[in-house]
This record gives sequence, structure tokens and C-alpha cells, in this order.
Amino acid sequence: MSHIFPLPSDLPEFLSPYLPKSVEAKPFVTLTYAQSLDSKIAAKPGTRTAISHLETKTMTHYLRSVHDGILIGSGTVLADDPGLNCRFKENGNINTPRPIILDPSFKWDYKGSKLELLVSRNESLKPWIIINDDSNDNIKEKIQYVENSGGRIIKIARNSDGKIKWEDILKTLHRLRIKSLMIEGGAKIINDLLERDDLVNSLIVTIGPTFLGQQGVDVSPLELVKLENTQWWTGTQDVILAANLQHN
Amino acid sequence: MSHIFPLPSDLPEFLSPYLPKSVEAKPFVTLTYAQSLDSKIAAKPGTRTAISHLETKTMTHYLRSVHDGILIGSGTVLADDPGLNCRFKENGNINTPRPIILDPSFKWDYKGSKLELLVSRNESLKPWIIINDDSNDNIKEKIQYVENSGGRIIKIARNSDGKIKWEDILKTLHRLRIKSLMIEGGAKIINDLLERDDLVNSLIVTIGPTFLGQQGVDVSPLELVKLENTQWWTGTQDVILAANLQHN
Repeated sequence: MSHIFPLPSDLPEFLSPYLPKSVEAKPFVTLTYAQSLDSKIAAKPGTRTAISHLETKTMTHYLRSVHDGILIGSGTVLADDPGLNCRFKENGNINTPRPIILDPSFKWDYKGSKLELLVSRNESLKPWIIINDDSNDNIKEKIQYVENSGGRIIKIARNSDGKIKWEDILKTLHRLRIKSLMIEGGAKIINDLLERDDLVNSLIVTIGPTFLGQQGVDVSPLELVKLENTQWWTGTQDVILAANLQHN
Repeated sequence: MSHIFPLPSDLPEFLSPYLPKSVEAKPFVTLTYAQSLDSKIAAKPGTRTAISHLETKTMTHYLRSVHDGILIGSGTVLADDPGLNCRFKENGNINTPRPIILDPSFKWDYKGSKLELLVSRNESLKPWIIINDDSNDNIKEKIQYVENSGGRIIKIARNSDGKIKWEDILKTLHRLRIKSLMIEGGAKIINDLLERDDLVNSLIVTIGPTFLGQQGVDVSPLELVKLENTQWWTGTQDVILAANLQHN
């Protein structure tokens, strides 16, 4: 397993008010991402862009170590082929969260992915995949592959307006013993959840001092969203904002 | 004159590497604005939105006090009706910069503006207005009013593609003894100048921890823009980034 940059010693204390606590009937949800000054999380759709310093990437692994699950959207999985594991060691131990892919039409393929490689090396857990529909033949094959590999398929219907039913997803994950969930993107999921002060417990945003430009993948909620308990941490290159969504 | 919030004592030292120095044949240009996390400078076009804490507003007045001119676009003047003066006192003295309005089609009216009121009270300087065309009759009247009031009209032709000729504007202002110019927006001017590492000497951006949402007025350059000498200052509510545009 590759080594990661050391965690800045003052980060755990800075983050501690925003870390998972037990909440009722749903997982504690941490929404987290890294953006440029012009609030882009990637320079172009479908690409991965390095925005943050290695020390803030290490923070991501630290945050993963205190959550039971990491959820990301299919767009990000398809663009990044991420490992979705935890490389932060505490007293020699690693607490790897469950990788959970939100992939309503099941576009991603576990077979041949980086995640599958890491699972085969015991460096990540078998994925759970949230899908909407299992009627298509191509999907049936993929489902079988994931289930035969020890992964899990979770079927959650969408709302009649096509929107993600976050309440159902979170309730189901809670029943499956995911008491804390870190949601890492992509943009569609972030924009959706920035408006869900009823579901999101903590927001942790890294800002890298660069502009990705108007072709970038934008993060911005539909409407105005206010924050509270805002705290800034300044790193070598980036700032990190930790906050709570203000309840309307 | 209304009082302003005290300047945080460590801000002058933080800002000092980015403050005006003498440069060749053009003014030293400081580009500065306040944005939300989702890089909006206003919640809606044509409106003014409070984003920053009073202490970072005081910084704006401090910055104005060390520049010879403040330039803003007509959109912002029409939306905000700003005073464009300096309320920061150093040893009891105020150094008020020249208000310069970039208003190619001369849509703004000095008559009845807040600026005119402040000038009548000796709290601001008479404006200079950069226009493109003086052929229209309505404009002729406005020009006469400004000139009779002791203001100045500066006529600068646009490029054949309709773009602002920043080189000509800056050369002309330099000849008129504006050795340092603070450019405060709006979005069109900011987006334009973020790509002009040949003209912009310092960038100072305040980020307020709030989201203004997708209807907001967006700041983002057309292409990727890298920064160097980046420094963050953390205030009571906001962070301030001071930086230089990286030369391509």
C-alpha cells in the first residue's frame, strides 16, 4: 500500500466538532469535496483534476477512517476509477469504510476496476452499489458479478420526478449498519445535498488557490444556502472550511 | 462620514507584499472582490449582496487608501450606486482615490448619484468616466453635466471584436497620474482581467462562507488560471486570499 503524506498535527482538533456522532435512524452524513476558487471540482466533465495539496488529501483519508461508509456517484467513479479505500493508519490500524457507489442505471463496471484490484489485495472492502432498476440484461450480468464477488446490490426506486430518494438510501444504509457516511461527490450529488440540511450533518470543503475556468465542473446549490459554526483551517497551500448547513 | 469597523491589526503586514509598487508605463493593478464559496459576487444580476464581514469591508477601504484610483464597471455602479470613497483614516488623514467608472455606452448617470452627494460633501473625488462613443444625444448631455461638475470623460475605442482595450485604458490613466489602480469588478471585468497576467499585479479575494446559488453572478475565467505567491488570511468569518497571477 502506498504511503500518504503526514496528517498535519492540528487537523484532528480542528475537525473534531464536525466528526460523526450517533444520530437517529439514519447515518451521520459528512459532505466533503475539494474545489478551486471558482468552485469547480474538475477542469472538465469526466476528468480528474488535482486541486488540493497532499496534506489535504491525507485529511480525506483521515476522514474516511472515522466513517463506516464512503458514497460517491457513478460519474465520479467512471471519471476517476478511484480506490475508495483508507490509507490513514491510527496506531498501526486502518479502518476501511465500505465503498458505496450510487449508480442508478448501473453504468460502472466493478470487473477490472481499481477497486476490484485493491479488494483482491485486501486493501479495500467489497463495494455496495445502489441501483434503481435491474431489468436490463447487461445490468443483470453486472449484478451477478458483484454478488458473486461478495459485493452487495441495493435497489432503491427513484422519485416519480426522477430525483434521488436520499431518505430511502440513508435509511437502508443505516439498517445495514452504516452509522456514518462520508459523501465525496460528484457535483450533481453535492449540489443536491447542499440543499438537504435535514440530512447533511457536516460540510468539509477544501479550497485550492487556483481557477479551473468556465469549462470546469461547477458546484453550486440551486438556491442560496447559509452555513453556521463555520471554521477555517489554513494549510500549506489550501484552506479548509468546516461547517454545518443552517436549518431553514 | 460614517465610521468603519477597525482594521484587524495583522492585515497590513499580510497585505504588504501585494500592495502597489511603481511599475513601468502603466498603473500597478490590484484586482479585488468578495465572493461566496460557489464563486458568486451577488445573489442575482443587478443586485448587491452582503458577503463579507465588516472587518473585510474595512480592508477594502484600507486598500483604497493606498491606490490612486478605483475602477469599477457600469453594471456594478448601476446595481450598487456606490460611494466609491475611502473611509480608512491613517493618522487622521484620508487618502481618497479617484473614482473611475468603465461605462462604454455611458449608461450611468452621475446626476443624482450617491457619488455626487459624497462629492458635494467633500467625501469623494469627482469621477472620471471611460466611455467608448459620444455620438448619442442623451450621452452628450451626460458628458456636459460631468464636465461642468469638474469630472472627466475619457474616450477609449473598443477593439474591433468589441472587447475592452485594457492596455489603452491603463496607459491613458498612467498619463493622468494614476500610478496604482484598484479594480473592484463587476464579474465581466473580473473574468476578463483574471486572464491578463500581463496587466494585473495583485489579486486579493475575500471568500465568505456561504453559497449564493446558481442564480448568482459568477466569477470564473474562460480558461484555467494558476496563481503564485498565494497567502491566506483568516478573519472572524471570511478568508482572504492574496496572490499573483502566474505568467504563462
